[in-house]
Formats: sequence, structure tokens, C-alpha cells
Amino acid sequence: MKILVINAGSSSLKYQLIDMEGEKVLAKGNCERIGIGGHIGHKTSAGVSVEKDMDFPSHKEAFLAVVDVLTTGEGKVIDDVKEISAVGHRVLHGSEKYKTSTRITDEVIDDIMAFRELGPLHNPPQAIAMRACQDVFGKETPMVAVFDTSFHQTMPPKAYMFGVPYEYYEKYSIRRYGFHGTSHRYVTGEYFKVTGREKEGSRLIVCHLGNGSSITAVKDGKVMDTSMGLTPLDGFIMGTRCGGIDPSVVTYIANKEHLTPDQMSDLMNKKSGFLGISGVTSDCRDLHKAAQEGNERAQLALDMFVYQIKKFIGGYAAAMGGVDAIAFTGGIGENDDILRERICTGMEYLGLEICKERNKEASRHDAKFSTDSSKVEAWVLPTNEEIMIARDTKELVEG
Amino acid sequence: MKILVINAGSSSLKYQLIDMEGEKVLAKGNCERIGIGGHIGHKTSAGVSVEKDMDFPSHKEAFLAVVDVLTTGEGKVIDDVKEISAVGHRVLHGSEKYKTSTRITDEVIDDIMAFRELGPLHNPPQAIAMRACQDVFGKETPMVAVFDTSFHQTMPPKAYMFGVPYEYYEKYSIRRYGFHGTSHRYVTGEYFKVTGREKEGSRLIVCHLGNGSSITAVKDGKVMDTSMGLTPLDGFIMGTRCGGIDPSVVTYIANKEHLTPDQMSDLMNKKSGFLGISGVTSDCRDLHKAAQEGNERAQLALDMFVYQIKKFIGGYAAAMGGVDAIAFTGGIGENDDILRERICTGMEYLGLEICKERNKEASRHDAKFSTDSSKVEAWVLPTNEEIMIARDTKELVEG
Repeated sequence: MKILVINAGSSSLKYQLIDMEGEKVLAKGNCERIGIGGHIGHKTSAGVSVEKDMDFPSHKEAFLAVVDVLTTGEGKVIDDVKEISAVGHRVLHGSEKYKTSTRITDEVIDDIMAFRELGPLHNPPQAIAMRACQDVFGKETPMVAVFDTSFHQTMPPKAYMFGVPYEYYEKYSIRRYGFHGTSHRYVTGEYFKVTGREKEGSRLIVCHLGNGSSITAVKDGKVMDTSMGLTPLDGFIMGTRCGGIDPSVVTYIANKEHLTPDQMSDLMNKKSGFLGISGVTSDCRDLHKAAQEGNERAQLALDMFVYQIKKFIGGYAAAMGGVDAIAFTGGIGENDDILRERICTGMEYLGLEICKERNKEASRHDAKFSTDSSKVEAWVLPTNEEIMIARDTKELVEG
Repeated sequence: MKILVINAGSSSLKYQLIDMEGEKVLAKGNCERIGIGGHIGHKTSAGVSVEKDMDFPSHKEAFLAVVDVLTTGEGKVIDDVKEISAVGHRVLHGSEKYKTSTRITDEVIDDIMAFRELGPLHNPPQAIAMRACQDVFGKETPMVAVFDTSFHQTMPPKAYMFGVPYEYYEKYSIRRYGFHGTSHRYVTGEYFKVTGREKEGSRLIVCHLGNGSSITAVKDGKVMDTSMGLTPLDGFIMGTRCGGIDPSVVTYIANKEHLTPDQMSDLMNKKSGFLGISGVTSDCRDLHKAAQEGNERAQLALDMFVYQIKKFIGGYAAAMGGVDAIAFTGGIGENDDILRERICTGMEYLGLEICKERNKEASRHDAKFSTDSSKVEAWVLPTNEEIMIARDTKELVEG
């Protein structure tokens, strides 16, 4: 069974074609500049690259180009589009309705569009892409929606409610939803797979650290709490996002700078975080470099990142009454052994002892880097959201 | 030496007259409705109560009434105003300039007024009250300012910086300041006094829980982090304040409800927290009652309070690399053994074991309620901000 995994944005369409026999990625690529031009970048597992400027007036033309590049020319990996048994779509926001992945129907697409206020940048293009995908593949090709929010739907109210008047929860569904759910779920699954532990009684903290970052407390295999909130802004300092701050800072800056809520939101999402503190970069690798060269604000951004993550780990340990393992994933979590070491240092009070040598060699593959005698385990478990989407799609399609 | 301690608000003037010989409170009271009427309520250590409606056009008339009630009539505790050696004033916000208590000069009063944007409801009336106090007592009576923010000035930048663009720190002094500093300092001092421990190497978490609440991580006797921020809104759920929330909730509600930053600030400070969640009360005792009677939202407010405090305790333990003791103070912290028990339950992973019986008897006095074998101690240490202000005043006056 071959499954096409789709991650659509307003002007982009990322895809992977996965052969579920051995979960092998046959090809992957990205259609860019949809609506404003068009370009497809495509790569096969055999190493063939295709780059083409095209005209993508809408997501439909992008899907046609994906079908074309998968079935013809140099980048071809299948003979016929009919070999694609199903399509799995990543969806940002499933609100409280979608607690698990779901077969896509007209109602589901309408719902995803209806949740646009909770995910204004993501949900509308994702709904539009589903319609375009139906146009191109035909309604007989089963499609599945996999929500970033689903895995977090097991949180108890004490964790997902914010301290603002209850009526806003009733009126606007304002609550903590959490994101990166597919990644946190994949890593949680990997943890149980590689360790062979029982879900029942387990207490895992998953740190998905990348340009966007979130940390999740997973108790008994289910999410108990997560750092992102109503939107992916909450939590701790990220590439360009401020993470959690005193809410009075929002009203204070808005007042002083005469900013509308949308402008303020823009400032907190795009001009804050590593970029806002360092003044030079949103990229963690560049921060390291700048800090080494003596840039004190770059060093401060890194210090804040490490410190705030430590506090989340400590907070979630308290939430779960302790912790058995901490797993690192995402671009920074998988690759940055320096930050992993800093985050895990001084956590002996929790029972965590890391081996610095193991940590250095742990990047980019499943690897434990705590010592053998450490009561709390530390892991690198590289994420794979696409395979998770493909698995869900397969499962739902096979019934 | 007798010291008058003043806590002024825009329409109120709380006072205590303390004999530093034995640190005995001779009398205390409150002038209310300043500017809109006037009432003084006064109580002596001998148990005499005086209640009088008066006319207080400004703080000056209130100070005259305080002098009058202290020196004449039924409430009299001293013969002459000259017996008052010095006046200590509580000040909300000392910005980054005032790291310790300070003898009041014209410059200090001007600064306190200049910091009004950081403490708009408190700093202006406090500066005005100092001028009025000078008018009544004469400039020859020494006065001292004791700042709620001072004790927290030892925080490192990684703890006090928010992830918004650095320029706002430079331009508007936006950072975490923390409040209840005088209370946290008093309780910290009490902890070292009652336990006889060394400051060096110590790790204490002070939970000041009341209508407004804050938690402070005190390492080596110095503040390393605290939950309140630029203003006393940050942290966790309080009587009417939301505490920390996803900053995007602020812009989301402001957008939906067409609220200005000031209206939004009002909503988060006065209509949120226990009141906003329960819909019935901002008072913790009433919440307990409502929850017992089956009010689910009252129960939710209590659950959120306990849960968020647990996360702060866990986070600060991580920040300090462990914790030796947790101290409870403030109206809730000193009196509510049910919530203390809930907060401390399930924290065995930290090394904390409480004795339920001791906890029940611990309220309202210095008392340890952890078990003898507990690695982490739990304490009730009732706060006394007034005595702290009086001590600082005495020390600075005596030079």
C-alpha cells in the first residue's frame, strides 16, 4: 500500500509518497509559491532531484504537478496514480471535536474551515488543499485528516483551562490545545517501542525543540499537559516567538506602541524569541556562533531557552509526580548536543544523570544518553510526523 | 524607638505604629475613602477600637487624623507625635534602580512618581502620601521607602527577561520585577532563623498565597526567580487575576471583544482568576464552600490553583537544581491546610513527605509539617511585611 502524505500551507504543498511495505519513503518534495508563481522541488529515494518552475494558480495545479512528477519523467517512482491507495493530510487545528485522526468527508473539511479562527494561517489552506486533492484524485481515493491537536485532547481541564473568565471558553473555545501532537505521539510511541516499557504508570516528558518548540507531559502514554496553548505561541522562547510572558506585557507594549491586537500578535509570533532577544538571528546554530564570538544577547537567548526548558521539565515532573524519561526530538532536540547537555545538567535532584560522551554521539538516531545508573532516562528519538500520518491513514483506510 | 509603617493606596492609608523594643505593635488602622469622603478605623494593642467618619480631601488630612488618633482620645498610645522616630513607607515599584530599602529624599519621591507607568495604581498615591507625610511630620522626621520589588533584584537576566524584542527592555524597562518582595524576604529570614541553616547552598521555595499570590525561588538566600512579572498579573491563577496565560489569548479576546489594552488589562486583573473561572467568588474560602456544594467550576478553580502551584514548585526546583524546603505564607498559605495538603501531595519524587496531622495544626504560626524523615521540609511561616518595613527603617535611620 502506497500512501501520499500532504502538508499544505497557504502557498506551499509538501508531500511524501510512502510505501507502507517497510515504511519506505519513495519520494518527497515541495510545491512552492502557489498563487504567486510556482516551483516544484522533488527528490526520489534513488537520489534523483527534479526542480521545475511552473504555474500554480491554486493548490489544484500543484496536486496535478505532484501526480505528474511521481508518474512521469526522471522523478517517476510509480507507474500510475492509482497505485496511491490513500492520502493523509496534516491539519493544524481540530478544536475539541477531533480527538483522533479521521476519514475526510465534506463535513470534516467544513469543520476544518470552520476552525479557521483557531488556526488562521493553517486551517483554511489545509481545507482548500483537501478539496483540490479530491478534484485531482477523485472522491473514491480515501483521505484522512491527522490533527496536530488530537494527541493533546486527553489533557484534564486543570491543565487546559486558562484563568480568564469561563465564558470565553464557552463562547470562543479559548483553552490550551497544544500542537506538534503528531510528533509528540510518534516520539511517545518510539519510546515505548525502544524501551519495551508499559504505558500504565509511565511518566515521559517529550521535548520537541526546533524553530517552533513544545514540551509535553505524557502520563500512562496519554498527554497530561503541553506547553503550547490556544495557538503555537505559548510555552517558552522559540525562533521568532516569545513563548509564555506576563500577559500584562502584551497590553503594555500594545499601549505604548499603539499596536492593534493583530500587530501585537505579529510582533510576538514573528519578531520575538531568539530573533528579538539576540537582534541577529532566529536560528539556533547561528546563535551559538554569535555567542561564541562574544554576542551577549545571543548568549542570553540561549540561556533563556535552556533555563525555560529546565523549568518546564521540572514543572511537568511535578505535574506527573515524577518522571521516568525525557526524550528530545525536533531540529534542535535531535542535533544540538550542547543544548541537550546544558538542559540536562543540574537535574540530578530528579534522578537524571547524563553521560556526556553518549550525548555527543546521540544525535540524529534513537539513542539513550543517560548513564546506566541514572534513575531517569534521557533519550534522543528523532521524530517522523509523516510516517505517523501515513500509519493513521493506513489504519483508517483498512478499517 | 517607635516607627510608623505606612501602606498608602489611592484612597486609603494603612498604618501600624510599632515599638521596636520587642517589635510590639502599639496600634494599627486604616484611613479609607480618601478624596471621596473619609473614615478611620483604629485599634490599639490594648483592644480599644475607634471608628470615625471624617473628611479626608487628601492624604494630608488622613495623616493628621492618624497623628490625632495616636496621641489623643480613647485610641491614644503615645503622648506626643515626637515619639515617632521614623516612618517606613511601603512602595510597590522601585524599578531597577532601588535594589534595597532607601532613605526618602526628594529625588526618591520623584523616582517613585517617575516609575508610575510600572505601577500605575500604587506608585503615584504612594509618592503623594510621602509628600503629605512630610507636610505633617516635618522633613526632620526620617522616612524610608521599602520596595516590593527590591528583594527580587538579584534575579539573573535569564530569569527576568521576557522573550519579546530586546528594545522594549531598553526603551520601557519591560522585564520581570516580581512583587511581594518584602513578604518573601521576611519569610526567607524566618526560615533561616527557625532552622538555623546556612544561606550558602540553600534552596528555598516561598509560596505567598493570598488574594494575590506569588512564588519565589530563593537560592543561597537570594531570589533566583519569581512568578510575578512586569506587574503583579503574572504567575498563576489568583482571586481575580488570570496569572500566566498564552499571550495569544490576550490578543484573541481583545480582537473578539473589541477591547482596548486598558480594558483587556482590567479584564485580566479584575474579572479573571477564581472569580472568572467559578463565576461566583474571588475568595478561596467561598470557593471551597461552593465546590463542596457541587459547583464544578468552583472545584475547577481550586484544581487549577493547586495544579499551577505544583508546576511552579517543580519548575523552581529545576531552576535551583533541587529544593531543601518549601514555605507557605499569606492568607491562603498560612490558613488553608486543605490546599497545602493538596499542593504537597504527590511530590514524593522531590523528597517531600508531609505529615497530614502536623499540617492540620500548622496554620497561623511557624510550624514544620513535613515528616521527620522527609528530605524536603515543608513549613508554614506567617508573613509580616510591616515588621520588615519597620526593621529596614530602623536600620537605615540608625545608620
